Amino acid sequence: MHNRFPIISINGVLGEQVSVLDRGFGYGDGVFETCRMIDGEIPLWNRHCDRLVESCKKLMIPVSVELVKDYLHQIIAHAIPQDIANVVIKIIVTRGQGGRGYRVPAEISPTICISIFPAAEFPTSYSDKGIEVKICRQRLGCNTSLAGLKHLNRLEHILARAEWSDENIAEGLLFDYNENLIEATASNIFLVKNGCLLTPDLSEAGVAGVMRGFILEALSVSQKIPVEIEKVSIRDLYSADEIFLCNSVVGIWPVVKILDSPDRIFNVGSVTIALQKLLADKLGYS
Amino acid sequence: MHNRFPIISINGVLGEQVSVLDRGFGYGDGVFETCRMIDGEIPLWNRHCDRLVESCKKLMIPVSVELVKDYLHQIIAHAIPQDIANVVIKIIVTRGQGGRGYRVPAEISPTICISIFPAAEFPTSYSDKGIEVKICRQRLGCNTSLAGLKHLNRLEHILARAEWSDENIAEGLLFDYNENLIEATASNIFLVKNGCLLTPDLSEAGVAGVMRGFILEALSVSQKIPVEIEKVSIRDLYSADEIFLCNSVVGIWPVVKILDSPDRIFNVGSVTIALQKLLADKLGYS
Repeated sequence: MHNRFPIISINGVLGEQVSVLDRGFGYGDGVFETCRMIDGEIPLWNRHCDRLVESCKKLMIPVSVELVKDYLHQIIAHAIPQDIANVVIKIIVTRGQGGRGYRVPAEISPTICISIFPAAEFPTSYSDKGIEVKICRQRLGCNTSLAGLKHLNRLEHILARAEWSDENIAEGLLFDYNENLIEATASNIFLVKNGCLLTPDLSEAGVAGVMRGFILEALSVSQKIPVEIEKVSIRDLYSADEIFLCNSVVGIWPVVKILDSPDRIFNVGSVTIALQKLLADKLGYS
Repeated sequence: MHNRFPIISINGVLGEQVSVLDRGFGYGDGVFETCRMIDGEIPLWNRHCDRLVESCKKLMIPVSVELVKDYLHQIIAHAIPQDIANVVIKIIVTRGQGGRGYRVPAEISPTICISIFPAAEFPTSYSDKGIEVKICRQRLGCNTSLAGLKHLNRLEHILARAEWSDENIAEGLLFDYNENLIEATASNIFLVKNGCLLTPDLSEAGVAGVMRGFILEALSVSQKIPVEIEKVSIRDLYSADEIFLCNSVVGIWPVVKILDSPDRIFNVGSVTIALQKLLADKLGYS
């Protein structure tokens, strides 16, 4: 039994090596999903699959989601120790090898790489008491072809995340070059204002997170909270009643301080708490 | 003797496998250089090295250019058949493994991957009679942190190159979202107007090619041709006396037709021919 993390399979075969001729390595020519497993279940799995298929379609990568599911079931059944039911699953799909330069090959054989990592450990205070965030200097470029996709071109986010090493700062907020708030480096952002949810429009930049989609399309509906998806300015941010970040690994983190001059302070508010409770009840996020 | 192309070494060891945990694969977290070897010499080698170092510095990847040179010398001395003196050399440097998510590791061990490919074969007419190009619908996003770098985040260029498969079209011209002409998918562009050279400013998008730099800083000077680097519009493009593309693999290709409605026709002009001749004399490009 393979029991040292990470456990990795490539096209269904255990092992972590890929050719440097893979277009994922040479060009970041692919997409990924990062999923949580909680007590043996993968919350929002269908949403992850749908986004993977949709993203591959936009990049013209002909992936079989059935094959991805098969490979995932294999690695879960045969390679994860049975007493481990809480992990993080990363699925990378690239265009595979071939093609001359940027030109895509006529026949595409995607590379499907599944990696299983131990569940990430974050302080429980992040969920309960909220987090401090900074505003990144790095700006996101706008590109309507790539906006929303969780693709493998992540240098902007890496440069943003490299702006701080202070462990007290949990996340960094990202604006685009037009000074619109877009997201945080590894999570989406929601504002609560007068009982409404507001989250940035991602048609020009940002990653359309699966948890963001679930909050917009399911949680807010069941709670009868109105939602707006539109351009968000720093003024909107600072005038919010509540702010929270979300992704499918950690669930929902309230933001209680934005480091700036002066720092901006927020409370962990009732809407955020209600959504966290719903997420815990429905999907097991704690 | 290893004599099947591509010949690849990773951190000085022959072999083509890299871990999927390498940040090059997961995030496109690195840079590359593509060089030509002509009759055993690598034209513009110092410029390639300088750009590699400069790009890595901007991305905070601590690469040793001496190590890159050592690995290259090793692969040339020991792995390339001695009767082969014309190849294409691709050098990829990534941030290596490590770090949590986008966060860069405290200790960075870059991956240095050198691949040797056979010299690319293009019709000789491309240099002599010129090429047809299209205008890509795909636009380049603007990002001042990444502009100019030959980094591994190449999805925009892949989507652009996927817009055509007609073998008569040699290249595609790329504009940014502000409708500025930036480059072609794998080459830089120069216009000639009233005896002056004009090439797009790359401070917001595009790859600052080594051949572009050589033309700007060496060839134009020796020919006493004035140069301008500024924003270039489609109107500038269509009113040019001559147009050519360049990169360090193919040298200089005159553009004689831009596919549009109506098509725009250009001649292979005297400035372009003079620069091609200089490039052949000085560096062996034919």
